[in-house]
Amino acid sequence: MTRVAVLGAKGYTALEVIKILLRHPGVEICATVDLEESNRIDAVHPSLCGRFSLPIENLTPQEVAERAECVFSCLPHAASATVIPKILAGGAKVVDFSADYRLNSPEVFKKWYEIDHPDATRLGNVPYGMPELFREQIIPAPLVANPGCYPTTAILPLTPLLRAKLIEPDDIILDAKSGISGAGRKLNFNTHYPECNESISAYSVGKHRHLPEINQYLSLAAGVSMEVIFTPHLTPMDRGILTTAYVRPTQSISQAELLDALRDFYQNEPFVQIVEHLPATKDVAMTNCCHITARVVGGRVMTIAVIDNLIKGASGSAVQNFNLMFGYDETLALL
Amino acid sequence: MTRVAVLGAKGYTALEVIKILLRHPGVEICATVDLEESNRIDAVHPSLCGRFSLPIENLTPQEVAERAECVFSCLPHAASATVIPKILAGGAKVVDFSADYRLNSPEVFKKWYEIDHPDATRLGNVPYGMPELFREQIIPAPLVANPGCYPTTAILPLTPLLRAKLIEPDDIILDAKSGISGAGRKLNFNTHYPECNESISAYSVGKHRHLPEINQYLSLAAGVSMEVIFTPHLTPMDRGILTTAYVRPTQSISQAELLDALRDFYQNEPFVQIVEHLPATKDVAMTNCCHITARVVGGRVMTIAVIDNLIKGASGSAVQNFNLMFGYDETLALL
Amino acid sequence: MTRVAVLGAKGYTALEVIKILLRHPGVEICATVDLEESNRIDAVHPSLCGRFSLPIENLTPQEVAERAECVFSCLPHAASATVIPKILAGGAKVVDFSADYRLNSPEVFKKWYEIDHPDATRLGNVPYGMPELFREQIIPAPLVANPGCYPTTAILPLTPLLRAKLIEPDDIILDAKSGISGAGRKLNFNTHYPECNESISAYSVGKHRHLPEINQYLSLAAGVSMEVIFTPHLTPMDRGILTTAYVRPTQSISQAELLDALRDFYQNEPFVQIVEHLPATKDVAMTNCCHITARVVGGRVMTIAVIDNLIKGASGSAVQNFNLMFGYDETLALL
Amino acid sequence: MTRVAVLGAKGYTALEVIKILLRHPGVEICATVDLEESNRIDAVHPSLCGRFSLPIENLTPQEVAERAECVFSCLPHAASATVIPKILAGGAKVVDFSADYRLNSPEVFKKWYEIDHPDATRLGNVPYGMPELFREQIIPAPLVANPGCYPTTAILPLTPLLRAKLIEPDDIILDAKSGISGAGRKLNFNTHYPECNESISAYSVGKHRHLPEINQYLSLAAGVSMEVIFTPHLTPMDRGILTTAYVRPTQSISQAELLDALRDFYQNEPFVQIVEHLPATKDVAMTNCCHITARVVGGRVMTIAVIDNLIKGASGSAVQNFNLMFGYDETLALL
Repeated sequence: MTRVAVLGAKGYTALEVIKILLRHPGVEICATVDLEESNRIDAVHPSLCGRFSLPIENLTPQEVAERAECVFSCLPHAASATVIPKILAGGAKVVDFSADYRLNSPEVFKKWYEIDHPDATRLGNVPYGMPELFREQIIPAPLVANPGCYPTTAILPLTPLLRAKLIEPDDIILDAKSGISGAGRKLNFNTHYPECNESISAYSVGKHRHLPEINQYLSLAAGVSMEVIFTPHLTPMDRGILTTAYVRPTQSISQAELLDALRDFYQNEPFVQIVEHLPATKDVAMTNCCHITARVVGGRVMTIAVIDNLIKGASGSAVQNFNLMFGYDETLALL
Repeated sequence: MTRVAVLGAKGYTALEVIKILLRHPGVEICATVDLEESNRIDAVHPSLCGRFSLPIENLTPQEVAERAECVFSCLPHAASATVIPKILAGGAKVVDFSADYRLNSPEVFKKWYEIDHPDATRLGNVPYGMPELFREQIIPAPLVANPGCYPTTAILPLTPLLRAKLIEPDDIILDAKSGISGAGRKLNFNTHYPECNESISAYSVGKHRHLPEINQYLSLAAGVSMEVIFTPHLTPMDRGILTTAYVRPTQSISQAELLDALRDFYQNEPFVQIVEHLPATKDVAMTNCCHITARVVGGRVMTIAVIDNLIKGASGSAVQNFNLMFGYDETLALL
Repeated sequence: MTRVAVLGAKGYTALEVIKILLRHPGVEICATVDLEESNRIDAVHPSLCGRFSLPIENLTPQEVAERAECVFSCLPHAASATVIPKILAGGAKVVDFSADYRLNSPEVFKKWYEIDHPDATRLGNVPYGMPELFREQIIPAPLVANPGCYPTTAILPLTPLLRAKLIEPDDIILDAKSGISGAGRKLNFNTHYPECNESISAYSVGKHRHLPEINQYLSLAAGVSMEVIFTPHLTPMDRGILTTAYVRPTQSISQAELLDALRDFYQNEPFVQIVEHLPATKDVAMTNCCHITARVVGGRVMTIAVIDNLIKGASGSAVQNFNLMFGYDETLALL
Repeated sequence: MTRVAVLGAKGYTALEVIKILLRHPGVEICATVDLEESNRIDAVHPSLCGRFSLPIENLTPQEVAERAECVFSCLPHAASATVIPKILAGGAKVVDFSADYRLNSPEVFKKWYEIDHPDATRLGNVPYGMPELFREQIIPAPLVANPGCYPTTAILPLTPLLRAKLIEPDDIILDAKSGISGAGRKLNFNTHYPECNESISAYSVGKHRHLPEINQYLSLAAGVSMEVIFTPHLTPMDRGILTTAYVRPTQSISQAELLDALRDFYQNEPFVQIVEHLPATKDVAMTNCCHITARVVGGRVMTIAVIDNLIKGASGSAVQNFNLMFGYDETLALL
């Protein structure tokens, strides 16, 4: 049995990771940690009533590291990178849900997050927790940077096409639509029900914080530095992201060739399915799957990818990474 | 042209009353007032862009009364009764959306709202703004207490049956389901989208503040003091209230007789429709109508009433009252 | 490994039972059966893509019984009781999702379903698949009648109170609110999105087909023949039922005593939680749990129970019954 | 008083046009016409109960033309162009909601609608009912082709920029998101609530029938033949379209310059608002307004436009056209 702790236990991704881990035969959740709360975890998350109960504790990083072998940090950015060095020093491994270790450059981090990085020396040495692309680096890592939800729907469909030089890196438009749970548990006027229900709107146009993460990993796939256009939209539903990508082929290509290239790349991946039909976010709701299709329209290539933002876009990927880091079957608790 | 002002202009009922009044040929909105806001009204409510724009001003009650002939007060309880006496003293009439002048007894007010009433001497002399029942009192009144949304769905269907002694006053159960806009514009965990979307729950069981208002007006209809059981439920939709009432007939009665009694009572009312089918809240969304039906089931009488909580349950009724108070056709701007 | 088949594989409850069984370590799904469809199951249900694929076959009952040890019949009423005798004769066990074997009397069946029962002699000898009440009868049974979704939310909260004579059997009002998946996969104007979204309405008032099933099992609990008033409401959400029950105590009783009585009754049940707070359907969405609370209001007792209509109200209970019938841990695949 | 008839009276756009016309002081609705229905209009549309009632009649085009001065044809494509010539011959004017008279070329019509046009000789001589662009042609016309919902959100924001040569015509991507009422009243698996609720998906990628209409009118604005990429998405909400356009500037341009160009173009238009903020579909729900903004991102120009698909995208525009054709104030019944 692997003892795990969950930090930032009041949030939605924490709840999801707890629900997944309750199905994991090799895991014992030994601590739920949050700064502000001394209630029980099933009082904060009533969906856990009768299924799981621990007090929410305000533990130091040292205490967490003593109690747990693996820590899922669902803390917000900056907060996460403040405690993680101490947890690692205490001997526990960490899957970090925040953006803190996703970017390689402290300067880029500072530009987008407007603070100095609390643990800058580690940047560039932390594997990005997308097993389909970085499995070998994740397996031995003490710390993994779990990907953002939007980036997952951009990097998974486009990496195979960029690596194979089937599409141009310099003209990529990502039009993304996300359910509202992606905004988290914190109250906000934009996620007040009477404001966002029955309405769709774009937000953070040209300046969403997931943009540098997308650029970094697509640049890696393309072999050249590149920048995309990325527009997120708030969609009136709990869960799901659908990202429609408009890219330019390097040469004439058919839909069948595109689908074949994607299928070849992901043929052994349990959580990426290349589909012929146009996928809906509901097809992958409550699963760790990403469904991808491709089309050729008006001389352009389009890819459409769907995930559950809280599972494949957060807590499911986190458990997938945990399974790799601790030698479990990668799909355990995730099918 | 009648000059009107709207107090508490940032809220949802204020927005609705403004949108209705923009269609009113006899009204000029001359002031939008709120304590905390100096922005323009169409910046706070973007649905007004290009349709209506005034600065939101922090005016004194005296200033409001100087500028406007009628004031729609969308302030919360207690705040409303603090400024209304000064507005009335200044010579303007008032339609009050709060609960402050709905109850006849300062003691009952204090029991339910946990403060001393700021203007207790007026209680009992302010007509309840339900024109279908109190039209004659509303017409000459300087101040009208606009009904609560839930009470509207209880009092309209049951008053005719109680007055005609067709149902017993001592065994009334009201199971009500409301859309989420009823909770207002203030952020609250219960109305955070990921919490309340795709979910229904009861709240304030046995202690909702609309209960004394329901009891007072049903007692008046019955001619005896009575108390109902009232359970509100938060339903995942923007607008609408459906109230299912379970009552006991005084003697054997048929569905046809019930519908006839209701039809007779409301035959000349433009905004109350007695229907044969089972009404849905969508049938009355965005309208000032109340649809009511009745059934006889298992020896009990059931009534089902639906309204739009922001229109017939608030801003539409307010304009209906305004029309009566200022001599306009009662349906102006409301059809 | 137990070989199972799913009949009526195109429906929503079939999809849910397949998704649950994919997590069951003791089960191999060996056939997905439907009359009208020759497509693959993951083409009909795209959420199964990459997770499970079988052709949908049009098998005879005999073929089904040869291939499978347990059959989940998600066929509609009457169709189910036509094939089940042949499947049982072929040696397989059956969990029946339809209403066909829930009622004890062929006359009552005919009154409510307006046809002669195709297998009337079995009626009265088939255990009702609610393990919390009928576990001992389910374990050895070759055929189990899986409960209806609404009845689950009526029978679980009220049975303990009726058995203990804490409430009167002759004055029970059930006001139920269900998500729209309960209406199934068949197209219908009432479940057309623009009709039912953002709207709540009552339906089948006084004549829903779950009524005789509720009456039968509450009568059994009370020890006297009784009839309830039951009003279902169509609520704009995918999943979930919340049932508010208004009953009359036999003597003065407190909320604490009610909750204690319920807790005592269900203390060893893994899927029934008695909670202090007012539960929401979201608390139990995607789980096999039923959360129940109780209140005393205006001299009446209220119970509020919530389930996921497709899980505890259908497919989850079915797997719970299967686990009992085949000697697996009752909670396997359900936590 | 102008006598009007509504054809295809059972549909959603017919209901909306009736509701708008009920507020129009110059209109008497004298006939509601549908082939298959002999019920009253308020039985088909319960939201009309107590507000408007006529029998739905199966009238010939000649009878319609005798009774009405203006006909709103909400018939589907091909059906509309079959009856309209006879109505025009009978002396009534027509606003056609279908696509039948929007395209100038019978060949293009045949390619996209797969039938020979029933009234091909009129094509090219029917003004497109977008008053902001074609007001002078609409005023004297006996027949107006009311625009499609999606085209409205493409043509309004891009026409000013194309006419001013601020953007290139050969690289336009339109990513559109529509509420589900756009699919109409006809039952369809894609609009079955449990399928489309809580889900977003693309559909008709590269082949939606609104594409030739968009191409025709943007080509007209650009002065060259051009083709766009257009991807519609089905969004879980009743009403609203948001279209995000990605285009390429002809030269370096700022956001302020873009907004100024749009403001100048639409400065006298009552129903087009150029806004600084990012608009949401809810801002224009239930109104005849189109809110537009623009951004410069990554060297590209983006426009975002929102409308209510049933009002500005259908029935509101239709009444706006009617007002022009019959000499009423253009905004009558629409504010």
